[in-house]
Amino acid sequence: MSDTAQLTPSETSPYAGLPPINVKLFEAKARKGLSFDQIAKSINKDEVWVAAAFYGQAKLSEEELKKVSQVLDIPATEALSELGNHWWPNRGLGPMPPRDPVVYRLYESVLVYGHAIKAVVHEKFGDGIMSMIDCKVTIDKKPDPKGDRVVLTFDGKFLPYATW
Amino acid sequence: MSDTAQLTPSETSPYAGLPPINVKLFEAKARKGLSFDQIAKSINKDEVWVAAAFYGQAKLSEEELKKVSQVLDIPATEALSELGNHWWPNRGLGPMPPRDPVVYRLYESVLVYGHAIKAVVHEKFGDGIMSMIDCKVTIDKKPDPKGDRVVLTFDGKFLPYATW
Amino acid sequence: MSDTAQLTPSETSPYAGLPPINVKLFEAKARKGLSFDQIAKSINKDEVWVAAAFYGQAKLSEEELKKVSQVLDIPATEALSELGNHWWPNRGLGPMPPRDPVVYRLYESVLVYGHAIKAVVHEKFGDGIMSMIDCKVTIDKKPDPKGDRVVLTFDGKFLPYATW
Amino acid sequence: MSDTAQLTPSETSPYAGLPPINVKLFEAKARKGLSFDQIAKSINKDEVWVAAAFYGQAKLSEEELKKVSQVLDIPATEALSELGNHWWPNRGLGPMPPRDPVVYRLYESVLVYGHAIKAVVHEKFGDGIMSMIDCKVTIDKKPDPKGDRVVLTFDGKFLPYATW
Amino acid sequence: MSDTAQLTPSETSPYAGLPPINVKLFEAKARKGLSFDQIAKSINKDEVWVAAAFYGQAKLSEEELKKVSQVLDIPATEALSELGNHWWPNRGLGPMPPRDPVVYRLYESVLVYGHAIKAVVHEKFGDGIMSMIDCKVTIDKKPDPKGDRVVLTFDGKFLPYATW
Amino acid sequence: MSDTAQLTPSETSPYAGLPPINVKLFEAKARKGLSFDQIAKSINKDEVWVAAAFYGQAKLSEEELKKVSQVLDIPATEALSELGNHWWPNRGLGPMPPRDPVVYRLYESVLVYGHAIKAVVHEKFGDGIMSMIDCKVTIDKKPDPKGDRVVLTFDGKFLPYATW
Amino acid sequence: MSDTAQLTPSETSPYAGLPPINVKLFEAKARKGLSFDQIAKSINKDEVWVAAAFYGQAKLSEEELKKVSQVLDIPATEALSELGNHWWPNRGLGPMPPRDPVVYRLYESVLVYGHAIKAVVHEKFGDGIMSMIDCKVTIDKKPDPKGDRVVLTFDGKFLPYATW
Amino acid sequence: MSDTAQLTPSETSPYAGLPPINVKLFEAKARKGLSFDQIAKSINKDEVWVAAAFYGQAKLSEEELKKVSQVLDIPATEALSELGNHWWPNRGLGPMPPRDPVVYRLYESVLVYGHAIKAVVHEKFGDGIMSMIDCKVTIDKKPDPKGDRVVLTFDGKFLPYATW
Amino acid sequence: MSDTAQLTPSETSPYAGLPPINVKLFEAKARKGLSFDQIAKSINKDEVWVAAAFYGQAKLSEEELKKVSQVLDIPATEALSELGNHWWPNRGLGPMPPRDPVVYRLYESVLVYGHAIKAVVHEKFGDGIMSMIDCKVTIDKKPDPKGDRVVLTFDGKFLPYATW
Amino acid sequence: MSDTAQLTPSETSPYAGLPPINVKLFEAKARKGLSFDQIAKSINKDEVWVAAAFYGQAKLSEEELKKVSQVLDIPATEALSELGNHWWPNRGLGPMPPRDPVVYRLYESVLVYGHAIKAVVHEKFGDGIMSMIDCKVTIDKKPDPKGDRVVLTFDGKFLPYATW
Repeated sequence: MSDTAQLTPSETSPYAGLPPINVKLFEAKARKGLSFDQIAKSINKDEVWVAAAFYGQAKLSEEELKKVSQVLDIPATEALSELGNHWWPNRGLGPMPPRDPVVYRLYESVLVYGHAIKAVVHEKFGDGIMSMIDCKVTIDKKPDPKGDRVVLTFDGKFLPYATW
Repeated sequence: MSDTAQLTPSETSPYAGLPPINVKLFEAKARKGLSFDQIAKSINKDEVWVAAAFYGQAKLSEEELKKVSQVLDIPATEALSELGNHWWPNRGLGPMPPRDPVVYRLYESVLVYGHAIKAVVHEKFGDGIMSMIDCKVTIDKKPDPKGDRVVLTFDGKFLPYATW
Repeated sequence: MSDTAQLTPSETSPYAGLPPINVKLFEAKARKGLSFDQIAKSINKDEVWVAAAFYGQAKLSEEELKKVSQVLDIPATEALSELGNHWWPNRGLGPMPPRDPVVYRLYESVLVYGHAIKAVVHEKFGDGIMSMIDCKVTIDKKPDPKGDRVVLTFDGKFLPYATW
Repeated sequence: MSDTAQLTPSETSPYAGLPPINVKLFEAKARKGLSFDQIAKSINKDEVWVAAAFYGQAKLSEEELKKVSQVLDIPATEALSELGNHWWPNRGLGPMPPRDPVVYRLYESVLVYGHAIKAVVHEKFGDGIMSMIDCKVTIDKKPDPKGDRVVLTFDGKFLPYATW
Repeated sequence: MSDTAQLTPSETSPYAGLPPINVKLFEAKARKGLSFDQIAKSINKDEVWVAAAFYGQAKLSEEELKKVSQVLDIPATEALSELGNHWWPNRGLGPMPPRDPVVYRLYESVLVYGHAIKAVVHEKFGDGIMSMIDCKVTIDKKPDPKGDRVVLTFDGKFLPYATW
Repeated sequence: MSDTAQLTPSETSPYAGLPPINVKLFEAKARKGLSFDQIAKSINKDEVWVAAAFYGQAKLSEEELKKVSQVLDIPATEALSELGNHWWPNRGLGPMPPRDPVVYRLYESVLVYGHAIKAVVHEKFGDGIMSMIDCKVTIDKKPDPKGDRVVLTFDGKFLPYATW
Repeated sequence: MSDTAQLTPSETSPYAGLPPINVKLFEAKARKGLSFDQIAKSINKDEVWVAAAFYGQAKLSEEELKKVSQVLDIPATEALSELGNHWWPNRGLGPMPPRDPVVYRLYESVLVYGHAIKAVVHEKFGDGIMSMIDCKVTIDKKPDPKGDRVVLTFDGKFLPYATW
Repeated sequence: MSDTAQLTPSETSPYAGLPPINVKLFEAKARKGLSFDQIAKSINKDEVWVAAAFYGQAKLSEEELKKVSQVLDIPATEALSELGNHWWPNRGLGPMPPRDPVVYRLYESVLVYGHAIKAVVHEKFGDGIMSMIDCKVTIDKKPDPKGDRVVLTFDGKFLPYATW
Repeated sequence: MSDTAQLTPSETSPYAGLPPINVKLFEAKARKGLSFDQIAKSINKDEVWVAAAFYGQAKLSEEELKKVSQVLDIPATEALSELGNHWWPNRGLGPMPPRDPVVYRLYESVLVYGHAIKAVVHEKFGDGIMSMIDCKVTIDKKPDPKGDRVVLTFDGKFLPYATW
Repeated sequence: MSDTAQLTPSETSPYAGLPPINVKLFEAKARKGLSFDQIAKSINKDEVWVAAAFYGQAKLSEEELKKVSQVLDIPATEALSELGNHWWPNRGLGPMPPRDPVVYRLYESVLVYGHAIKAVVHEKFGDGIMSMIDCKVTIDKKPDPKGDRVVLTFDGKFLPYATW
């Protein structure tokens, strides 16, 4: 068995298609032993949003890029040249349906509760949607003697359908 | 054009595959002009959970079935004979990817934030998942002068992976 | 060959999954020989939006439903009972990829110009999307000696991505 | 973590399958800090069409290739050798359904308004299609106090179906 | 085994989703023992185009509908009420990839010769496509001692790509 | 942006999976500025068949390989070592459904006219298929004042179904 | 809303495609309030195998059919006429990937542990497979103070690959 | 539970899309207790071919239809009116990949041995295919003390690729 | 034929997307001639769980990583730097449906027995699922004169559905 | 055009995912000009089985590997190190549906004759399957004046379904 033959890149990896600098961000984070929360604090952002940026799903401003590069000890010029003003996220990480159980459970929430959520949104807000663009996602740890709980919150603007 | 030819049933309908009584529940609810919240209050449950039950995604106890039938003026015997103790939800409402924009935005949250959520869950809880079985889903309306916001919360138990 | 066996309903029909009243709207429109534009004028709406409503992709207000029923000589009570305040559009008409050449050309525009449109939207507006919820769609006929032209316009609000 | 292992090329990237010169065009554009509009002006073309050409979805003439190479300071010989008279666009950029929210909204327009557009095109033009070959695509920014709007226009020739 | 249970309608049938009158056209044709060519002659059209119309893939004029109804002894009023001026073909008959060997061989021609055809079209005509809208399809029988041959011809207008 | 990261090979390229010599054939053809027709004449074959061979969809004899190598100034030994007697075409070039509009129109011909073609083949020849193995494909340019036309012809043997 | 329109049959139902008698078996079981285990005992079989037979995934002998009919108070003649010696199971219940969480977890076991199981089977048995034809499936309830456990066992014959 | 709601027709049934007479053929065969071999003998055909005809995958001549109707005691006129000279098989029974283990094993033979079969066919016959149109399929039972064996044989004409 | 061209990495390989160290673990295991059971004993774990860890489907603790590195004679620092505390399994190995017969049989068990298992789980435990997170998977060899048997056991916690 | 950019590896190649030694086996076979039959004779095996082994679909014993290496003049140590006792075939070569016409015809045999084969197997053997594990596949050339015929035989053990 030789490495070069067996070590096959994979579309299903969450790193598939990311610019090289993103992989360097993950490596530096691992080397430094920092959490997303610790990195996020340095730019006054939330950990979920910063993790999304590491996965190429959000756009850091040039100021934020410089600050993150400093915190992680990587050259800011490289980060700016790859993720600077000319770069725009190509959002959407596969595969779908997700294979990883953590991500699949989110997908299952759409299968099981999607229509119920739609029905209640309509009852409470009318004909429109909950925006996933103007939306903030946060994760809290809620201690519980029967087992800690993950509290995942989506706070998104309601957008009514235009008529014309 | 004749009805019987053109009116084609659809796999993509959220009513596809539901027992007939569920459609009657929706009809009675419309006729009575009740919201899921109003129905939910009669059995001390949350509106999202009750909506899920109407879509065949959750199991009402026999007591709850009787109470809901009474609130909606439909014969409890029919409800019990179709959704009683012998009946178990066949969960999962399609199609996937969702075509309806409200449901699609939930799906998009998995595409855009799925891996970030996974990364933060691991950092905060370790190797495991957020349960979608022992999980409560709620929707709140947050008034906002720039446009009201939908606050969608998943409160699920963290389950660590077994090793053996 | 017998009708009932061969005449198979089809998921790929644009009528698949619509409430029965919608089919009656199409039938009445054909019987009356009215165009979408003529119907739209009676409720001060655009023809594309009214066509979308006939296909179950937009929500007519109760006032509009009554007016349309009157124009088409169908009982308003039936329309209200099926498409009234309790009803919400289940948007998204298949199949995808579209098989019909007219609809496929729209799909092809995404394949061929999708990334170019994304790049120019980002250059002109920044990191965000063109809303398909707060969006108006119109079709104009532009006479041309070399062959008339279809001018299809999407006028949608730009939504910048939230950061948090 | 090593680069070469984790940095996996991706079918879902909009750069997948492009000739190397196209990537150089993007790099030079980023280095020069030019917009598509600025490049387009140098060859009297529209920004959307030029962006399409950068993504390998349109064919620049040899004259245009030379001019663009000059504007971007890259050797015209290389551009001509890769994208010259022998080269023909292999159109169609995936993935479909699109994962990126900007591109998905275009796809959603087909799901939600595709059949309505088809119906109105038939009413206004008869049995035929709107060409996506003899079609011009433009994007305008319409300032609006409630939020600027993207005006996306497709101006395509109507093609009636042949009968024989 | 009971009919009504086992006799399952099928999406994969070429009759799936056709208006009821089309099935009656097929039945009358079988009863009369007429070929498509014989029917086509009555309206001065080609047999392939008429067959396409029977499968709901082309639009007969009202004159043609009346003539065909007369030839087949079916009431013209019914044909006109279902396929008249208000009706537009919803083109595209599945399934794809085709399962029937006759249709599959056409699909295989795309797999095996599609790129070669594209290359030669570009060499002979430039950057554009062969229209499948302004295209005539004919089938001839060419006797051959080693086995008769099917000569299938597509005669379609070349459409050059617009630039703008 | 670095080449090696962004320049992602693509399954959807028509060159995907071809032996290296085929790419050299395309390069030499471009360098020499020869058309498929000019190359085909040197071996008394048709341009479409030769184009198919360049895309790895047909098998050149050793004599033909030598002649083509000579015409294109590439070493015959290399061509023979890769495409010689031991090599057999692995036919079928994706993706399907095709994304490129030229190839898609061929696919659309199957969707729109496939069943009509099948019906007429059966009427004219009986129960069997048109062979895509014993089939010759040619493209002619038919000048037309309203726009030149592509005449694409498939001349395939009819194969009756065996019974046993 | 009318029943006949909204109540759409569903391919994703586990009852899809079953002979009518199977639905009657489920109804009689519900009416009698019997468990699969109670029914299984009457024919000396396991509950999982009997449940599989109810879902049309296993073949009851004529003796067993008669006995089960008697236990459930349904006419044996009907059962024999539909599921008798001429009937063979058409195994395989969709949809896949499963949408129901109970069934999905089994599917997830293939995603997560499939290759590990394959590797250990090869190490312990050599080149071959675990038969799913000569395989017995049982479910036991293992009480556990931290929550009862499901013990699902597959006992299948090892089949070595033939060489020839 | 009510029949009409739960008893859902299924695309995955092998009877999906068959003309009603085919179901009657199966019913009469069951009622008469005849094997395919017994029916086949009456028309001097093989049992596999006759079974294919029952599934709508082969075309019985009018003589054969009459004879089979007589053997099965069903009215020949009905059989002729549905499967007579105007009727042509719409071949190809799904679903694919097959879910039933018997059919899946045939599919698995393509996955595991497809390329090996292709390689040996090329070595023994040259560039061409084994026809599945001029092909006879037979099944023999080979007694074996270690377990009887199924001998499945495809005897198909070799078709060399045309060159032109 | 040249290696670099023909030797194509594959998404369908079980090694696709694994970190390089995992391939080294497999290589060292092969070189040492150790079974998973032998490696597992060194860290007091089961062979199936260790095989899962080799395929990147389970997380070894740092202690376990060091011990396994020592047993396999590979540098622990490399293992820790790639699979240490910062690394989390990206679970789910494709392709699905599985192509390998060993893995496919597990998938077939879901197709054939999935709904029966679900029904019996509900009867024995109520509305909930068998956890695949808190689940132990083991394989035993059961000698049998008619052919040894594989006993595959899943021992998973029952999780009742939350209501709220 | 540059090699490294255009020469894209392909999932659809039959060599995708094979260990490097397998490609060397094919190269040596081509260089030596040996047929599979000639190689097979050296180890007393059939040509189809040996071809399967070259495609990684069967496992050669160490003795066989040594012998084949000797016949092909390649170092046995390399073959043993890659395909020795630690290596197990990862069976299943794509793509499916097959694109190559030779392999597709086998797939078509499942579509057209799959259910007929299943029906006859059940009639002759009862409820069970034809094993594709204990199965021998052979190809014979049957000379025929109307064109030679390929005789493809599957000789597989019948496996009756377990009941329990």
